[in-house]
Amino acid sequence: MKKLNTAPLSGTQEFLPQTQATFDRLKSQISDTFRRHGYFRIKTPSLDRLDILLAKAGGDTEKQIYKVAKTSEDPARSDQGLRFDHTVPLARYVVEHENDLTFPFKVYQIGTNWRGERAQKGRFREFYQCDVDIIGRGQLDLAYDADIIATLLDAYQNLQISTPVQARISNRKILTGFLAALGITDKSDVIYHIIDHADKMPAGAVEDALVELGLPGSTVTAILALIHIQGPREEAIVALEALAIDDLTFRTGVSELAQTLELLAAAGHADAAIADLQIVRGLDYYTGTVFEFCLPEHREVGSIGGGGRYENLASYFTDQKLPGVGGSIGLSRLFYLLNEHKLLGATPVNLLDYAIIPLSSAEIPFSLQTAEKLRADGSSVTLVHLPDKKLSHRLAYAAKIAQRAIVIGEQEVATGNYQIKEFS
Amino acid sequence: MKKLNTAPLSGTQEFLPQTQATFDRLKSQISDTFRRHGYFRIKTPSLDRLDILLAKAGGDTEKQIYKVAKTSEDPARSDQGLRFDHTVPLARYVVEHENDLTFPFKVYQIGTNWRGERAQKGRFREFYQCDVDIIGRGQLDLAYDADIIATLLDAYQNLQISTPVQARISNRKILTGFLAALGITDKSDVIYHIIDHADKMPAGAVEDALVELGLPGSTVTAILALIHIQGPREEAIVALEALAIDDLTFRTGVSELAQTLELLAAAGHADAAIADLQIVRGLDYYTGTVFEFCLPEHREVGSIGGGGRYENLASYFTDQKLPGVGGSIGLSRLFYLLNEHKLLGATPVNLLDYAIIPLSSAEIPFSLQTAEKLRADGSSVTLVHLPDKKLSHRLAYAAKIAQRAIVIGEQEVATGNYQIKEFS
Repeated sequence: MKKLNTAPLSGTQEFLPQTQATFDRLKSQISDTFRRHGYFRIKTPSLDRLDILLAKAGGDTEKQIYKVAKTSEDPARSDQGLRFDHTVPLARYVVEHENDLTFPFKVYQIGTNWRGERAQKGRFREFYQCDVDIIGRGQLDLAYDADIIATLLDAYQNLQISTPVQARISNRKILTGFLAALGITDKSDVIYHIIDHADKMPAGAVEDALVELGLPGSTVTAILALIHIQGPREEAIVALEALAIDDLTFRTGVSELAQTLELLAAAGHADAAIADLQIVRGLDYYTGTVFEFCLPEHREVGSIGGGGRYENLASYFTDQKLPGVGGSIGLSRLFYLLNEHKLLGATPVNLLDYAIIPLSSAEIPFSLQTAEKLRADGSSVTLVHLPDKKLSHRLAYAAKIAQRAIVIGEQEVATGNYQIKEFS
Repeated sequence: MKKLNTAPLSGTQEFLPQTQATFDRLKSQISDTFRRHGYFRIKTPSLDRLDILLAKAGGDTEKQIYKVAKTSEDPARSDQGLRFDHTVPLARYVVEHENDLTFPFKVYQIGTNWRGERAQKGRFREFYQCDVDIIGRGQLDLAYDADIIATLLDAYQNLQISTPVQARISNRKILTGFLAALGITDKSDVIYHIIDHADKMPAGAVEDALVELGLPGSTVTAILALIHIQGPREEAIVALEALAIDDLTFRTGVSELAQTLELLAAAGHADAAIADLQIVRGLDYYTGTVFEFCLPEHREVGSIGGGGRYENLASYFTDQKLPGVGGSIGLSRLFYLLNEHKLLGATPVNLLDYAIIPLSSAEIPFSLQTAEKLRADGSSVTLVHLPDKKLSHRLAYAAKIAQRAIVIGEQEVATGNYQIKEFS
């Protein structure tokens, strides 16, 4: 009988060993892709100073930060918290270790972050994120934007998801220049907000929202035309140029988008990387390339990751200009969605390679030696010590945890030979 | 110029990429050893209910637990905290998922734990631990004690530490029966405490402390004789039997210790596993086998891990009896000590396999294709995008981050051939 509620805390996840093994496979495949693309791994502490965590966070994020205090301390006076993303600790890390790092610095982080969000399906309070970033000192070449996107696309593709993954890419300069050319920069924040949420709005609602702003019909039409541009590089760039917008920022954005898509095509991602002018990625922070990943055959899943180019990683911490580009895979959310929509394909059952059953204690030494030999080749091997149980019970136990059993009795010890029983 | 203190929080660790790579190597070698020995991996949430965390914790541990609350909440009313070890969440996990697990359940956990300890050298508030446990339902064969110790010894040995690792093993029943036979069970707690700290006491201090308890000289002599028994199996067992103690618990303990050391010898650890009657491992919890790991050629390092047999994993959470045996490697502390005492040997510099330098943007597509081919073999490859810099500067950058450079110009693209420049 249970004496306490032993369920994991709401908003956290724990898995049975088999599911954990699949999760770990995804995590290590992502890590391996990042490594092969030339990113160095770092790991910042989970705990950080509240003034560091709060420097960038505003609004909802601030309220979601977990403060931390010893049970023996006055918690109201805590100056520590749990990190809510990988970007703030990265900014602190790069400033702290600037003289020991080589720029451009290609870096990845895989680990847990915490946010006190309302727990709901696919949203967790404790969640894994996998981030890649490239940080420059003073400046950072545009080609690194494609490097980040190609790396993340490769990471998704190596997960053996049973449906294609697509990168939808835009450039914030296009929209900024576009609104400037239309003479409505005073409304740009609210327009960004509408476009950013267009994906989740019913048909016609975006138009209605823009009309409600008091924009002239021709302006609304123009904005709708822009944000409906979506497709392969050449098609999208032709459509953007056909808008004939006479604004330097706009033209720079189009050129950057074209170059980024070209590089992605050269990296073998011509089909997976498309332009999508509806991508905004929030109001602040990003200044150039912005991108999101989705499953085009499963639109209901929504965004499974994203990122973009930022002018300055660490303006809150240093005067040194550190431009960067980065992106993130929300692994906990992705894993939840892939399971929910059965998109992980048939995952192999997590069983040991061998269970060795010594019939009596006299056979344990030979069983141990046999196990050591099999382990030397990388096999996972356990010994079954159930001396009071019948052999049938021991074999039933072995069949639950392993793919094969080896029973070791007097004869096996005498001859040094044994049979391998395959369960299947 | 820095605007905020960007140092990591006191009691936490962060490494430069090269050191991180060494730490990650150790972590994955430990994980691989546990897997090959037939343990399944689980990961419990970092956040848990305070009533779960506080169920077992007492005294100092309770004060060290970190409570967690959203910045928008009254922190005094928090009912959540960060786990301070892997054992409490494991107990909760096993009770929660009992019907989905197969017993004996061999399980490992590698992850971060948190304790609000006073930060000092080699003690961290946020630290990695690597735990193995075997949980039985109702009962658990003694042979599993040797399984745990052999697995941990293998894990240490696979780390390529440049000095031997030793398992010092005792059995709590020996001391319990011994004190019963001497008729001083009323003082056993304080005697356990003295023996537990004997390692850190100056010569003669243990005797003084025992004399101060008012024990007769012959009893003090007998206790000192017992706890000085240390050495290989046969020698130690002969010495224990020579004490001729007529107590069933004592004899059971000696027999269990003898069997455990025999199995470890059969597993190839005759030299690394010794008896040491000074090992106690605290006052509570452990009931049979107890063990600690140390570096016999570097006694100044102290204990680098340990564990033991417990009667009941989860008595606070369930009436079901769940006996177990487990042990732990304190990875953060071990890593700190190995570095401090230069015992990790020469660790390879963490550099990428290749840096590819396209001379101009025209050569990027061919450079990307070359990178993809090299990555397909598992190599780590980056592209150097520094178009405004001289080739000498780009090569200097490449030399800092990679073992080899490949410069791609017009000729390389035309012929499809390139030279590999080795840095060394």
